[in-house]
Amino acid sequence: MPHIELDTETPGIRSLFMYRPETAMPLTALAEVLLRGDSTLERGERELIAAYVSRLNDCNFCAWSHGAFAAHQLTDGMSVVDATHADLETSPVSEKMKALLRLAGKVQQSGLAVGPDDVEAARQQGATDLEIHDTVLIAAAFCMFNRYVDGLAVVTPEDPSAYASMAELVTEAGYQR
Amino acid sequence: MPHIELDTETPGIRSLFMYRPETAMPLTALAEVLLRGDSTLERGERELIAAYVSRLNDCNFCAWSHGAFAAHQLTDGMSVVDATHADLETSPVSEKMKALLRLAGKVQQSGLAVGPDDVEAARQQGATDLEIHDTVLIAAAFCMFNRYVDGLAVVTPEDPSAYASMAELVTEAGYQR
Repeated sequence: MPHIELDTETPGIRSLFMYRPETAMPLTALAEVLLRGDSTLERGERELIAAYVSRLNDCNFCAWSHGAFAAHQLTDGMSVVDATHADLETSPVSEKMKALLRLAGKVQQSGLAVGPDDVEAARQQGATDLEIHDTVLIAAAFCMFNRYVDGLAVVTPEDPSAYASMAELVTEAGYQR
Repeated sequence: MPHIELDTETPGIRSLFMYRPETAMPLTALAEVLLRGDSTLERGERELIAAYVSRLNDCNFCAWSHGAFAAHQLTDGMSVVDATHADLETSPVSEKMKALLRLAGKVQQSGLAVGPDDVEAARQQGATDLEIHDTVLIAAAFCMFNRYVDGLAVVTPEDPSAYASMAELVTEAGYQR
């Protein structure tokens, strides 16, 4: 049960967006730019970073939803999402994505955990400054979204089909709908 | 030295805002609503929550800047900011603020660390649902801002006077200038 009076018919973070439209506006705008705006990282890759950090933070709602959004937009679907969590090193993603996910994992611990070597490792695999910037900010943003969702105990559907239909909606219409 | 090529003449998070205006827009809009928008919590109290979480995350730039913004807007200035960090229980803030700062401290650990009792304790001291919501989101947002700033190693001035002039600017013109 949510810690404050939310519309419990609306699952997940959208119940918070309905509760406080003034903060929903910048929050959804941030998600839209970071996860769907112009970028040399594919949308599926950016959703994978979001899902990866959310799983590290044990936030089921964000891990399941952004995992579904990544799966929907990546060629190999959910098997890639699961593989990065089971063992990043052997997962079927590019060396550049591995370096960016490792960087995201450092950010999840603390901004101060990121060293020049983590950034250099990503650069060695071809990551640009902008891709490094966006990876750090996506990871940091999900440290916010995860805490927001769990800190207020939003309703988290257990049925995977709920996330599959969210994935269709987000892929089609984005976050600011 | 920053991990990516930033304008090192511009200290702190503003160098990141200059680097990526597309993400600066929602980030500054979020800070403006949360820390300066209409609220039954005073602006100084909300800055105090931001400074408290930033210090827990060992983020000097955010702790020093939002500490200065809180001090600038609270009657007892920097002594209150310092006191909440030294020992929240004996600090000269209201029982309601203590409960909200304790709640923010839980969010800093993890969204899952927040229990119904933490929320109930704030409510017992007169906190409304909206104040609880905003406290959780301010704490969560600073878990993002702190990681963003330190994860990219922005320039952090050591001179307190730098933060005093930022405080005047922010108090006067806000975050979206």
